[in-house]
Amino acid sequence: MTYCVGILVREGLVMLADTRTNAGLDNIATFRKLHLYQTEGERVIALATAGNLAVSQSVLNVLTEGLENPETGKIDTIYTIPSMFKVAQFVGRAIREVYRIHGKSMEQQAASFDVTMLLAGQVKGGRLRLFMVYSAGNFIEATTDTPYLQIGEHKYGKPILDRAVTADTPISEALKLGLVSMDSTLRSNLGVGMPIDVLVVRRDELKISISHRIDDNDAYFAGLRERWSAALRAAHQAIPEPPYGPI
Amino acid sequence: MTYCVGILVREGLVMLADTRTNAGLDNIATFRKLHLYQTEGERVIALATAGNLAVSQSVLNVLTEGLENPETGKIDTIYTIPSMFKVAQFVGRAIREVYRIHGKSMEQQAASFDVTMLLAGQVKGGRLRLFMVYSAGNFIEATTDTPYLQIGEHKYGKPILDRAVTADTPISEALKLGLVSMDSTLRSNLGVGMPIDVLVVRRDELKISISHRIDDNDAYFAGLRERWSAALRAAHQAIPEPPYGPI
Repeated sequence: MTYCVGILVREGLVMLADTRTNAGLDNIATFRKLHLYQTEGERVIALATAGNLAVSQSVLNVLTEGLENPETGKIDTIYTIPSMFKVAQFVGRAIREVYRIHGKSMEQQAASFDVTMLLAGQVKGGRLRLFMVYSAGNFIEATTDTPYLQIGEHKYGKPILDRAVTADTPISEALKLGLVSMDSTLRSNLGVGMPIDVLVVRRDELKISISHRIDDNDAYFAGLRERWSAALRAAHQAIPEPPYGPI
Repeated sequence: MTYCVGILVREGLVMLADTRTNAGLDNIATFRKLHLYQTEGERVIALATAGNLAVSQSVLNVLTEGLENPETGKIDTIYTIPSMFKVAQFVGRAIREVYRIHGKSMEQQAASFDVTMLLAGQVKGGRLRLFMVYSAGNFIEATTDTPYLQIGEHKYGKPILDRAVTADTPISEALKLGLVSMDSTLRSNLGVGMPIDVLVVRRDELKISISHRIDDNDAYFAGLRERWSAALRAAHQAIPEPPYGPI
């Protein structure tokens, strides 16, 4: 399983991804799921993947090896596409290309062609944008109404985002809230595991601000977990007693 | 969909259940899912149901109309079974009886025989216990290691329970935490809806302490939601800035 979240606020973008993959409970491994493509000053793109690892790795290879553009006849790659909307279309095309090659055979083996991706970034001249691309190659985009998107095991970490994240949330708060959302998921689901990859991109800087891997020895994340648990304890204790009867 | 949770602490039992049922998004209704069986001073039993409504209603009818006891030839009902363990077996038998009658026909219509129940209570002479009964009629029991059980849409409300609930949690805190867990689920999943039925049973009292329905006008629950959101906001703002780079 997987948990990845992207949060797009006015100041910029936060993305977080775990690294656990599993084929059953007894076959667990660590694979990076958050992939970065940067030409500083020109483009910064991030792609987080969930679903079948063979599918997502194939898609990643297609994105960098490139696909022929049917209109120009040239080879497009994720480094050459001129806008984020076209990059989202390109990722969709890459997924369909992998489906064309492997989809039928996978279905014959009862392996589902299962992949979802968070795509975010900015290409010079365009806006910083956040998309979720489905296995059919179609996609949706985060807006100011719903400024975050999740893939994988999204339910555990959704309540804190629903309660606290808006498009106006400062980017440092968005990062903390993303970490709390990830921590909630880590605690409740063994399919999501450390280390955690963290990305921050400030709007219009066209470069990575933070690219960091949180492992088991990360003192800040350990402190955040402890503080959060202590704060929740204090919070529920501070709520008055229920008035529904003698308890 | 559904969300029900049972929490068994040293002082007693808390159960919460929503009331939303749906057949698709466009066919929503309100049905009570938390059912109480009390003979004050002798037994207090609660049953919360998730899954196919036709199945769970049939099971409930079997529990009160009764099943023949194969050993004694008499009719057992949920009011006559002499221990909570035997009540759990009896609920399992009732589920199997409903499967025997309707299971095959449901499968022919591609309707899954899908039911899960939380069963809790105390019969005089025995302990206060909490079980989860599966659609096969088998069951597990909550223990001091894991003092809560959930059915239905359990993921949204699990992190707060994982962080905060132990067997030593005071019962009033357990009720507050159950309400927070329910609120997290209500906010994030339209399949779970108000009103909310609340039950509190103190250990060894053999009667209901609180049986209350929370509706949209419940001032305490509205206050709890607000206080909780405000406390979470204060909590993440109080966490120091992430040290991972210039943000």
